[in-house]
Amino acid sequence: MTDNQENTDAEDASPSGSPTSPPRPPSDRLPCHKSSVCSRSYFVVVMVFFHVYIINVIALLFYVHYSSGQEDASRSSDAPSGGQHQRSEPRRPPPSKPDFIRDVSLTRVEGIRVGHVQQVALVPGKVHEMRTLSLKPLLFEIPGFLSEDECRVVMQLAQLKGLMESQLMVQEGQEELAKELDLSPEEIFNLLDINQDGQLQLHEVLTHSRVRDGIWLTPENLREIYDGLKADKDGDGLLSLQEFRLLSSDAFQRFLLQRGVKRSQLVRNSRHTWLYQGKGAHQVLQKIKERVTRLTRLPSALVDLSEPLQVVRYEEGGHYHAHHDSGPVYPETACTHTRLAANTSTPFETSCRYITVLFYLNSVDGGGETAFPVADNRTYDEVCLIQNDVDLMDTRRNCDKSNLRVKPTKGMAVFWYNYLSDGRGWVGEQDEYALHGGCVVTSGTKWVANKWINVDPDYQRQARYQQLVSHLPDDENDDDLTLNADIQNPSIHQDL
Amino acid sequence: MTDNQENTDAEDASPSGSPTSPPRPPSDRLPCHKSSVCSRSYFVVVMVFFHVYIINVIALLFYVHYSSGQEDASRSSDAPSGGQHQRSEPRRPPPSKPDFIRDVSLTRVEGIRVGHVQQVALVPGKVHEMRTLSLKPLLFEIPGFLSEDECRVVMQLAQLKGLMESQLMVQEGQEELAKELDLSPEEIFNLLDINQDGQLQLHEVLTHSRVRDGIWLTPENLREIYDGLKADKDGDGLLSLQEFRLLSSDAFQRFLLQRGVKRSQLVRNSRHTWLYQGKGAHQVLQKIKERVTRLTRLPSALVDLSEPLQVVRYEEGGHYHAHHDSGPVYPETACTHTRLAANTSTPFETSCRYITVLFYLNSVDGGGETAFPVADNRTYDEVCLIQNDVDLMDTRRNCDKSNLRVKPTKGMAVFWYNYLSDGRGWVGEQDEYALHGGCVVTSGTKWVANKWINVDPDYQRQARYQQLVSHLPDDENDDDLTLNADIQNPSIHQDL
Repeated sequence: MTDNQENTDAEDASPSGSPTSPPRPPSDRLPCHKSSVCSRSYFVVVMVFFHVYIINVIALLFYVHYSSGQEDASRSSDAPSGGQHQRSEPRRPPPSKPDFIRDVSLTRVEGIRVGHVQQVALVPGKVHEMRTLSLKPLLFEIPGFLSEDECRVVMQLAQLKGLMESQLMVQEGQEELAKELDLSPEEIFNLLDINQDGQLQLHEVLTHSRVRDGIWLTPENLREIYDGLKADKDGDGLLSLQEFRLLSSDAFQRFLLQRGVKRSQLVRNSRHTWLYQGKGAHQVLQKIKERVTRLTRLPSALVDLSEPLQVVRYEEGGHYHAHHDSGPVYPETACTHTRLAANTSTPFETSCRYITVLFYLNSVDGGGETAFPVADNRTYDEVCLIQNDVDLMDTRRNCDKSNLRVKPTKGMAVFWYNYLSDGRGWVGEQDEYALHGGCVVTSGTKWVANKWINVDPDYQRQARYQQLVSHLPDDENDDDLTLNADIQNPSIHQDL
Repeated sequence: MTDNQENTDAEDASPSGSPTSPPRPPSDRLPCHKSSVCSRSYFVVVMVFFHVYIINVIALLFYVHYSSGQEDASRSSDAPSGGQHQRSEPRRPPPSKPDFIRDVSLTRVEGIRVGHVQQVALVPGKVHEMRTLSLKPLLFEIPGFLSEDECRVVMQLAQLKGLMESQLMVQEGQEELAKELDLSPEEIFNLLDINQDGQLQLHEVLTHSRVRDGIWLTPENLREIYDGLKADKDGDGLLSLQEFRLLSSDAFQRFLLQRGVKRSQLVRNSRHTWLYQGKGAHQVLQKIKERVTRLTRLPSALVDLSEPLQVVRYEEGGHYHAHHDSGPVYPETACTHTRLAANTSTPFETSCRYITVLFYLNSVDGGGETAFPVADNRTYDEVCLIQNDVDLMDTRRNCDKSNLRVKPTKGMAVFWYNYLSDGRGWVGEQDEYALHGGCVVTSGTKWVANKWINVDPDYQRQARYQQLVSHLPDDENDDDLTLNADIQNPSIHQDL
């Protein structure tokens, strides 16, 4: 019997049991009158049961809320006989700041060990096998997640809508931000100097320029630029503060633009579009969304309020160098999808993609693997990613040195968590091991789709956002979802 | 309000509300009589509430039982309103063979990531910090788990009881087993030849001799023995089947006995004893057991029915080469602690120590670290443990090459899981990464205690065993616990 049924029972029963509604005997003059005593004692009993029942229901709800988290120290064998309230107490966060009651916990699929296979029921009448590919990040593959027809429909819908360059050749607006922040060359130098040795190593400059300019420099490229700009006068491959000071803030970018940038030198060399999956969308897209909800075991509201489906096409020679789908989250970082509900404006923003589900829409003739350079490494050290001129993030050169590569297979899905658990049933720190990229396609075309599930690591903000969205009228609501989902894409409001 | 109180309320209320006890009005001739109608309707209401209450309690108990596991596919935002029974269904193993209803799930503490710190409430008025040391194995440290006084008491109790050699210099009985199995030299050769290349590499012979004879051979030792026995005639360090055939089955052991074996050449060089922790035991021992139950969040019955506390003393020069506390479990493997409940006899048996809790009773002057040679390695490959004559399992030589070392600190506890989860809330495969050893003590004495929590990976057998033990009279029961806990230790029945 379900809780719902019980509630119904209780409601059915209460009209006759509540003190206001039942037909009362008119003769209640004396408390010691037999019939009166009888009905009063029954009344007391009814009320006691009623209160006990209500308390029990509340206790059950509390237990359900708090038991989905993990860190309860007292979850032990005496659970069935022990009290619910006592047991839920250690689970609550310390009452340092006022907190909404957390009424949702995020399930994480268990990885157990690499190679572990679990059977999952995603569509009626079929069982899928889900294999653990790595624990850091927590990564799974599910062959045959999409049917051949579904793959075809998604590709066709994307083509109908039209795909655009995934990256502009030169990113604008970055300069202005730098000017707004008004940093001195010394301050910039200090920010770049990760190991704080007073010199800029090649990898320190490389990491920065990729994020800022969207241009992928190899160590050789950088040496070439140093030569062209006569930046590294002593020729040791390091920039001192003095050498750095002599460079103008956009010297690199100007040099590169003068020389010309090829597509293959971009961080990302692909075309993509976005497909809305809400009400009114193509049945296949809605079904995929529902299947993702079952796969990830997350609340459907979270999946519904996430970004639309991104469809990406890589031509021969296409690639996507290793990157994180979502950045680290500090207290002052805002999530793109919950900005509506954020009280403050902040220059730090990330997409808060808790989970990435990646679908392979075709089998690629050559190359195009998804590479996880540091999956299941014992430790993560950013500095070690570029060593001895071998850049593990370079998916045009060094995919073969990645710890893990997934071969594109039509209909297969892989999914992973970009964030760890916080140990209390919500989103924790970024999982650095989730670094991944698309290896260069050596033959044919590669079609993939990405479904990201956005969750704000700040539970309060996520809750406020959901509350806000739920109060919008239906039309606005739909618009709002897509608005939040893709700020970079003005064409998202077009009907499919 | 706790569940117990609720039950009390319900019991208090029921005598006046139950249909048998209250003073009934004598005039219940007609159903339409006013007073009669009144009390009947109340009676109906009371009964409805009573049933609803009971159903609610049952639902709550079911929820508590099933919610402790992890792999429930439907644990999502609709949990509070969803039905409990529906949600517990996917948790059950496929109905391939008849199964008891699983009424206990094993909580696993979440590691999150290396370095993660969670606060745990283990003793009233104090909060302990539990830090994740590794994820493979899932390993934690808790500084100050035992007080100085508790450490002293445990060491004194162990000394009162007396410690014995942890390992006999020559293990007997193994020969007989080999004779019983009656294997031909070819069959033994095949068993030893792990990589099946038709030759016995040094590490293949080493691994075997350590398990069989309890004598720790280094690669050099083995070459020396080959020379002494003229076993490896072509001197290539490999034994062919022909060379192996010329050796008698106990040739190695005889050679070693003739030459003499030093304590430092044993797998284990320590003295130990066992301290019973059940009813009547020293308060400190009982409290430690209760604290371990809270720490591990396991049913107290499991902890109660586990091995007694093992106290170990390493003198200067003492060590324990890397080993697993518990072996792999195949369908035909029996657990030592549940043998009572096993239907069949089998030559394969292991101790089924799901969790190891290791307490440091003193801070060691020099050495004595607990080493985890392959903790958080990307892959586990037994062959890689001995490479280029570097044996990672040798804690006298190569502790510095272990991935992880824990320094003994008085009062600190570390604990880890020797088995993975099966993904359905019970014990799964052995975690090979849990390999660990005690580094050689270079200065002073090292005192530690081990609390193992024994769980049979076969849920049915564990359940039968617990049922069996619970039906024994109290005295037998206690005897039985200790009997099962330590078959190697005849002194376990002595009172402390």
